[in-house]
Amino acid sequence: MPNTELIENVLNLIGIFAFALSGALVGVQREFDIVGMAVLATATALGGGIIRDLQLGDTPPTALRNLWWLALPLIATVVTFFFHPVVNRMRRTVLVLDAIGLGVFCASAAAKASAFGVGALAAIMLGTITGIGGGIIRDLLAGEVPAVLRKDSKLYAVPAVLGSTFVVVAWGMEQRGIWVQAVGAALICGMRLLALWRGWGAPVPRLVTRAAD
Amino acid sequence: MPNTELIENVLNLIGIFAFALSGALVGVQREFDIVGMAVLATATALGGGIIRDLQLGDTPPTALRNLWWLALPLIATVVTFFFHPVVNRMRRTVLVLDAIGLGVFCASAAAKASAFGVGALAAIMLGTITGIGGGIIRDLLAGEVPAVLRKDSKLYAVPAVLGSTFVVVAWGMEQRGIWVQAVGAALICGMRLLALWRGWGAPVPRLVTRAAD
Amino acid sequence: MPNTELIENVLNLIGIFAFALSGALVGVQREFDIVGMAVLATATALGGGIIRDLQLGDTPPTALRNLWWLALPLIATVVTFFFHPVVNRMRRTVLVLDAIGLGVFCASAAAKASAFGVGALAAIMLGTITGIGGGIIRDLLAGEVPAVLRKDSKLYAVPAVLGSTFVVVAWGMEQRGIWVQAVGAALICGMRLLALWRGWGAPVPRLVTRAAD
Repeated sequence: MPNTELIENVLNLIGIFAFALSGALVGVQREFDIVGMAVLATATALGGGIIRDLQLGDTPPTALRNLWWLALPLIATVVTFFFHPVVNRMRRTVLVLDAIGLGVFCASAAAKASAFGVGALAAIMLGTITGIGGGIIRDLLAGEVPAVLRKDSKLYAVPAVLGSTFVVVAWGMEQRGIWVQAVGAALICGMRLLALWRGWGAPVPRLVTRAAD
Repeated sequence: MPNTELIENVLNLIGIFAFALSGALVGVQREFDIVGMAVLATATALGGGIIRDLQLGDTPPTALRNLWWLALPLIATVVTFFFHPVVNRMRRTVLVLDAIGLGVFCASAAAKASAFGVGALAAIMLGTITGIGGGIIRDLLAGEVPAVLRKDSKLYAVPAVLGSTFVVVAWGMEQRGIWVQAVGAALICGMRLLALWRGWGAPVPRLVTRAAD
Repeated sequence: MPNTELIENVLNLIGIFAFALSGALVGVQREFDIVGMAVLATATALGGGIIRDLQLGDTPPTALRNLWWLALPLIATVVTFFFHPVVNRMRRTVLVLDAIGLGVFCASAAAKASAFGVGALAAIMLGTITGIGGGIIRDLLAGEVPAVLRKDSKLYAVPAVLGSTFVVVAWGMEQRGIWVQAVGAALICGMRLLALWRGWGAPVPRLVTRAAD
């Protein structure tokens, strides 16, 4: 059905644009020039998928075979360059778009990894890495400790793991329609937004004694 | 002989577990949440081998094809989450396990690279990178300058290079039994422990004049 | 014509050596030991090309198949270890060699990517990444925000993009001789040196309001 493919494509592009905006915004905050912004936007938007494809041996990575995937981060850079105060005021919108991107990236990556025949745990990991990898690269390039690792981050990787697991389990039960990915992506997106709204975080180890060096 | 394969597997798993513990411990020290700990543990334990396999074109990487390789870092994370004061007090044990891991990773990577037909110098480099790569990724993710680069680190890469060289030279002389890897790993592990015990470091360039910016 | 190949090889080696020197020098400034210097030199000199080859699926990467490519960073490390005050005083020379390296790396990567059949935009990106990737890895390993992203950096990625575009467009017009790469490399090198001389930088977004956290 071409319609489902169309929907998947549109959601993917939304995710790429949202991730690219978040990358370009970090560039503005760190006072990078437009080159730095473009590198951050591109790495954030495409980094996770490229890591996935390299591990699956699917080269050149999908990102390099899609003109729009390559062009959108540059467009997001130009938009942010001129209108970053507006983009910044729309942070809430960007967070929602980012949650959509996280969901779509993880769900489609978990399905792709399953289709490539890797094991269940590996597929779940690849799904998760595809969703959180771009943001990790963004933060490293910006000289910050990746947000997803920090205790003040609201649940981000946990929804990614759970949603990817849903897709992989469904795949194992021969449920491989596009609706599986859609439900997985919606699960991730919804759980992420709920965590943001409710302030849910992941558990932090109790510091009984100060960890020695 | 299935026994040699078994031994190699067990040593590999010890190395993965030790590397994962060191990653999870860094996560505790940096006050990451459990997600951050799991990412650090996994990246430390599997990062070096994944870099090696990507360069050899052996995809998906071995790490993604072994359930235990994927599961051990998660187990190490849970153990460290609950018992990190104990793990921390066992630092000395972790350092010894880490040295075993370094030895096994380098020696088996040097052999694998040779088997893939890359040149001697390339095989030595891949052996070394496989051993030290995971720790470098761990430190970068934790926002620290990689320990292996710093002058206060005790010899770590040097044993890796020498042991990898031993394996590659033996391979070139048609000595390709598992014992070659065993001796190479023991060499690396022993030299590393000796360096820790004796406080040996690599030479540092003499700063005649302060290096200008 | 073997002569053109010879010239390309020599230029490539000059670029590798210059990049390696810049990596080793950063190691001296950060007071790393000789191991840290060697890792920085190697990563700076070969990192960009390895990223390119992994994405093109050309494994093992060219860098691992060339003895001199692997040996030169080690030689640069030893030279810098003993003579870093001299190397440091030759910063201007190193900057010129670095510009040559940037030009050669981008132009040959853009041509290689085109020959591998990736699209025009992807080839331009791969050309650019090959040129700037090594320096980004160098700065990350040294615990610094990559110079190429910062606003105080003089034009570096922009010449890389323009020169790569030239090569890719020429390739699309069936102009595929070595002279295309030579002109592309000269364009990049010349523009970079001009930017250094004139102090040209890339545009920086106007900070109307302080970007909120």
